[in-house]
Amino acid sequence: MKINENYLQLQDSYLFSTIAKKVVDYTKANKDAQVIRLGIGDVTRPLVPTVVKAMEKAVLEMGDALTFKGYGEEQGYAFLRQAVAVYYAKKNIFLDKDEIFISDGAKSDVGNLLDIMAKENTVLIPNPVYPVYVDTNIMQGRKIQYMNGNAQNNFLPLPDEKVSADIIYLCSPNNPTGAVYNKDQLKQWVDYALAQEAIILFDAAYEVFIGEDSLPSSIYQIPRAKECAIELCSLSKTAGFTGTRCGYTVVPKQLIRQGIQLNKLWLRRQTTKFNGVPYVVQRGAEAVFSAEGLEECSENIAYYMENASLIAQTLDELGIWYTGGRNAPYIWLKCPDGMSSWEYFDYLLENLSLVGTPGAGFGANGEGYFRLTAFGKREDVVEAMKRLKKSVDKK
Amino acid sequence: MKINENYLQLQDSYLFSTIAKKVVDYTKANKDAQVIRLGIGDVTRPLVPTVVKAMEKAVLEMGDALTFKGYGEEQGYAFLRQAVAVYYAKKNIFLDKDEIFISDGAKSDVGNLLDIMAKENTVLIPNPVYPVYVDTNIMQGRKIQYMNGNAQNNFLPLPDEKVSADIIYLCSPNNPTGAVYNKDQLKQWVDYALAQEAIILFDAAYEVFIGEDSLPSSIYQIPRAKECAIELCSLSKTAGFTGTRCGYTVVPKQLIRQGIQLNKLWLRRQTTKFNGVPYVVQRGAEAVFSAEGLEECSENIAYYMENASLIAQTLDELGIWYTGGRNAPYIWLKCPDGMSSWEYFDYLLENLSLVGTPGAGFGANGEGYFRLTAFGKREDVVEAMKRLKKSVDKK
Repeated sequence: MKINENYLQLQDSYLFSTIAKKVVDYTKANKDAQVIRLGIGDVTRPLVPTVVKAMEKAVLEMGDALTFKGYGEEQGYAFLRQAVAVYYAKKNIFLDKDEIFISDGAKSDVGNLLDIMAKENTVLIPNPVYPVYVDTNIMQGRKIQYMNGNAQNNFLPLPDEKVSADIIYLCSPNNPTGAVYNKDQLKQWVDYALAQEAIILFDAAYEVFIGEDSLPSSIYQIPRAKECAIELCSLSKTAGFTGTRCGYTVVPKQLIRQGIQLNKLWLRRQTTKFNGVPYVVQRGAEAVFSAEGLEECSENIAYYMENASLIAQTLDELGIWYTGGRNAPYIWLKCPDGMSSWEYFDYLLENLSLVGTPGAGFGANGEGYFRLTAFGKREDVVEAMKRLKKSVDKK
Repeated sequence: MKINENYLQLQDSYLFSTIAKKVVDYTKANKDAQVIRLGIGDVTRPLVPTVVKAMEKAVLEMGDALTFKGYGEEQGYAFLRQAVAVYYAKKNIFLDKDEIFISDGAKSDVGNLLDIMAKENTVLIPNPVYPVYVDTNIMQGRKIQYMNGNAQNNFLPLPDEKVSADIIYLCSPNNPTGAVYNKDQLKQWVDYALAQEAIILFDAAYEVFIGEDSLPSSIYQIPRAKECAIELCSLSKTAGFTGTRCGYTVVPKQLIRQGIQLNKLWLRRQTTKFNGVPYVVQRGAEAVFSAEGLEECSENIAYYMENASLIAQTLDELGIWYTGGRNAPYIWLKCPDGMSSWEYFDYLLENLSLVGTPGAGFGANGEGYFRLTAFGKREDVVEAMKRLKKSVDKK
């Protein structure tokens, strides 16, 4: 048996293990230090009461022969796909429920969608980037081209007609930069994809953080996007489902290549290689989309966005350049005084007992930048910002 | 964007849709008929009380900030991997918990494991077969060779030294035939795989139905199997998790090809392309392996096996040849009077209002055979066997 040698081309990421080691070493040497983590990419608020109630009820159903559920449809229960369709309808996007596939999270489908696409396609990926886009393509041996995010384009790269591409990754609001494409910019991408007969994989995992109505929270708000885009979304950040695992992927029926609906290929992939999301989880997800669920979840989102605001305000006061923090739970800042990403990491840890994520960990274009997130506890954010201001005042 | 054209080589399966259509037509024409389904491949007994209790508790934990769980390790929580290790230890198989990967079911991993193997490998698949083995390889463009299951070998094909293969699928107890390899037969497969430097993908999804101690319920009960086999298991049938989704895959550290531990490749695959099984589900799965959980689940298994016994007894009385029914929840019978699979299907439906699964749906070697399952309700099984006996007596 020969292994898939593409795996040997993968780079091991030491980003989070290096951070962990540095923090451990620091804590050992400074036993009284109150370390605050602002690098956390995971939510901290629990599931909302309406979701908990729905999941409890579903667990009890599973324990009773009369209401027990065995195999469900691989693409998800109709009740949940219908709830997602209603959620989209509020954005004036009208989807057939057969265009919606319930997933165990955006991460899985971001990689799995590549199964239905030929190896020979060229992939266009932003830099800096969520590493899963890169690694899943390396695993399949695809050629990758990068597009540069940088301070000049506010980390929102736009299409370059001279570059040809078949598969394009866009994430807006972006992880790690928090930058959000406006409608005009996204239209440029749709036009480019249509011209190239390319496919956009649009990662909308952070759409719920968009507060400004003028910004697109779905690529399908752009005309003709259904002919060139697959959209992935997740309840991980929307509803605190990082440990509960549920998302959804939209493959419009108008998306046709070589005369074949990608929707049919994806359905074939999912029915063959996936067995659906747990019934209990799907009932929890359905509750997210109820009036009470949406209301309760929006309180959590507001909580995180208040954290983001506090960070953004502080950076404004200190004159530090950043993207994100508005309409996104990430703040992507330029390290002060020309420090590299890791120099600034060490500086914050050793002087302020603050932990963030070095931008260099997200690709070469992240060097000199630093990611903070809004998912922490309020009191930690307040205290962290106090320390940051004080350190600058002292200089 | 070019699609993966291997998908165009897939055959659409009309097996279950054709069955459904025939049953609907029959029911319309015979409104009073009491149709009994013995073809069902899904469990009917609910989750056991210990599992329900554990899941309820876990749901409440998820609703409380102090006990909330976000992202877990992609390969599963240590508490569950440890529970699986203890389960294996009772079979005198000793696994490091890093050799155990928690999955959302055997179906997913059966396909996903192919990601770490080169396309150029030749695959050896039994016929008749669970169609997922075939389709997932066609999707990746691999060359497939079939090995013949038939009445002569009791649907337990053994290795043929003249055939070379890199990836070998074995399922024991088998779906669809219910046949179970003994230790000597499985040793022939392990020896063959070692000689060929091949990998066996051993699907042990039905291991819990093995009642005879002399039969292997894990391939690791065969010497040196850890050097050539990956074992997949599922709680779907063990604990009624078909709608709850949890299984586990064992990739031993001794399994090395081209100097590389497949365990490391699989860990890299899972951490990149999967985000783990829901915390609530993993707590339910942990409860399956508790003393109470095992006891309660074994009562359900005994219930299904009593169904299997009733069917097997009837076939014995009627002199109908079959495999399975002992140590397996499937009964694979030779259609009487030289009928084809679909002729017998029609005969049973039209004369006895019984529904089963035509063996021809599982591959060419299934022609002339028929699958019954033990997952129905007792009263239905009893009534179905009464009808079957009566029909033969009348002849």
